[in-house]
Amino acid sequence: MTDLEQQALERIEKRRRRPVRFADDTITMAHGAGGKATQALVAGMIAPAFADATLAELDDGARIELGDTELVLTTDSFVVRPLRFPGGSIGALAVNGTVNDLAVCGARPTALAVALVLEEGLDANVLSGEIDAMAAAARVAGVRLVTGDTKVVERGKADGMYVTTTGVGMLDRRAALARRDLRPGDRILLSGPVGDHGTAILLARGELDLEADVVSDTAPLWPVADALLGAAGSELRAMRDATRGGVATVLNELAAAAGVGIVVDEAAVPVRPAVQGACEILGIDPMYVANEGRLVAVVAPSVADAALDAVRALPAGSGAALIGRVGDEPAGMVLVRTAFGGTRIMDMLVGDPLPRIC
Amino acid sequence: MTDLEQQALERIEKRRRRPVRFADDTITMAHGAGGKATQALVAGMIAPAFADATLAELDDGARIELGDTELVLTTDSFVVRPLRFPGGSIGALAVNGTVNDLAVCGARPTALAVALVLEEGLDANVLSGEIDAMAAAARVAGVRLVTGDTKVVERGKADGMYVTTTGVGMLDRRAALARRDLRPGDRILLSGPVGDHGTAILLARGELDLEADVVSDTAPLWPVADALLGAAGSELRAMRDATRGGVATVLNELAAAAGVGIVVDEAAVPVRPAVQGACEILGIDPMYVANEGRLVAVVAPSVADAALDAVRALPAGSGAALIGRVGDEPAGMVLVRTAFGGTRIMDMLVGDPLPRIC
Repeated sequence: MTDLEQQALERIEKRRRRPVRFADDTITMAHGAGGKATQALVAGMIAPAFADATLAELDDGARIELGDTELVLTTDSFVVRPLRFPGGSIGALAVNGTVNDLAVCGARPTALAVALVLEEGLDANVLSGEIDAMAAAARVAGVRLVTGDTKVVERGKADGMYVTTTGVGMLDRRAALARRDLRPGDRILLSGPVGDHGTAILLARGELDLEADVVSDTAPLWPVADALLGAAGSELRAMRDATRGGVATVLNELAAAAGVGIVVDEAAVPVRPAVQGACEILGIDPMYVANEGRLVAVVAPSVADAALDAVRALPAGSGAALIGRVGDEPAGMVLVRTAFGGTRIMDMLVGDPLPRIC
Repeated sequence: MTDLEQQALERIEKRRRRPVRFADDTITMAHGAGGKATQALVAGMIAPAFADATLAELDDGARIELGDTELVLTTDSFVVRPLRFPGGSIGALAVNGTVNDLAVCGARPTALAVALVLEEGLDANVLSGEIDAMAAAARVAGVRLVTGDTKVVERGKADGMYVTTTGVGMLDRRAALARRDLRPGDRILLSGPVGDHGTAILLARGELDLEADVVSDTAPLWPVADALLGAAGSELRAMRDATRGGVATVLNELAAAAGVGIVVDEAAVPVRPAVQGACEILGIDPMYVANEGRLVAVVAPSVADAALDAVRALPAGSGAALIGRVGDEPAGMVLVRTAFGGTRIMDMLVGDPLPRIC
């Protein structure tokens, strides 16, 4: 690392030690992007008011003990546009997204609640198509859609429909996942190529003058999580699905929570050529582009190869790779070792280059 | 009953026996009003696709067995405008509304998930106020806000904010509530005056050129449900909170589910004078106006007085009354006995006279 890099690291580290404050006057698109602004909103305003230890950990879901059962609860609103895109639609995304939040909490998805906010004038066939898409996705994921709600707002007050899904799952006891538990030497496993979903959405919007055959990776991740729990057991430290903010943001959150450093081997990260090409035209790094069927897992080195084999044996994990490792330092940060042997800092997502991708 | 009334009854009964179909081309405000159009959408499109027995019962929540625990899951989106109104705001409403859906399912509210859809440009102080309102309402209701999500949509694509709350509760075993279980002779208990919430919202919008001191009744109903479970035990047949569509719609749903008739004594229904006055000016019946802190309970005649005393002993139930009784016929319908000794049919809400009241 050069002196300049070292100085940059120290500045970032100093800033990170400050308590998170929310200091903006109004809400901007960046507050919904899943990166730094979202973190400031959640950690600086919402979590302190709700004052719940579970929420304060800012995981994808919360553990709740009810009687003898330990369950996980998670919720997500979906506002993607357009409603339909290559590889999926808002209905499929809403089911898979919540199933995946349960899966990466180590909970077997059981039941979903669906709340719809519909725009007056929405074509009934469009709605019916999304209801069918939700039912189909739920069947594939093995969850039941058990309850729901429907509201309608006036023309112009929503983009066709917004969908909020909330999932309940049973905590799997094979591992005690905790993002604080990352240890030096642990390996970073990524379940497949990055950036497919966000790129597919951008192409579907026609904002890029580009034709490319990219489809969303939206898919349920419980089979991948299940395989990891089986192969790594208690040596599975943490799982995250890399949605808004992409793999880069997830790795930063993990590094910050555990106070460890993470080094990513850029050459090992799978990216489809069409995604790489679109990202180059846009000037964005695919590591920041949202995925809807990819997880990042941290495993002990002793089980890393077995975990990779178990994930690769699944259709949803055939493109999996070990992309990096956990080190002692720089604490709370992610570095990338480039193909040319250099090193650079990979920070959390800042701003919102790709709004409303989920 | 006159011959004309008898003929009207037969026509309605014939129509009700037809399977519910959804036949509209587009979504209208009425589909979100909680009355007939909402029922057609849910029973005619959504429930068949989701194909789940629990959902098909169209209760306010779904029972889920997880291990040895029986829990209830319920979800609701809130799109009320304005965001703040006399007696409450969208944040308080979102917490109480979901707490109340759990309560009337006979479940002690335990945990809530909160999903926010924010409009770009929303004043951060407004958001912060609603976060605090949710935290305060949760403290009063005794539930924890355990997890959440935040999305942002562009200016004009939402009315400031929409809030979706999803609740988990533990099923209370003192009663086995089932709306099908209504029996002739059962009494109808209403926990307080009707129409406060919907009227307060209308007045807050300034659409009525009217000044009246009406505040929303938004409040958690678990204490009322708890008192009813204690006083009536297994003789408590069913509970419903009378939100969209009002008490009239809830009674129709109960009568239809059980195949019984319900007769309401109009003079026994508590209505505040200011609410009565506003409804007369609007030409609407307060029985169709939304409440956010009132429940309707059906109890066996033997425990009706004890149940009423138990509810009246609570601050939230001081205005409670027994307002009617269950009979054999007309099956699936609700009749009102007027103060003048006449009888009329009280059907479900049709259309949406008061949009976006929750």
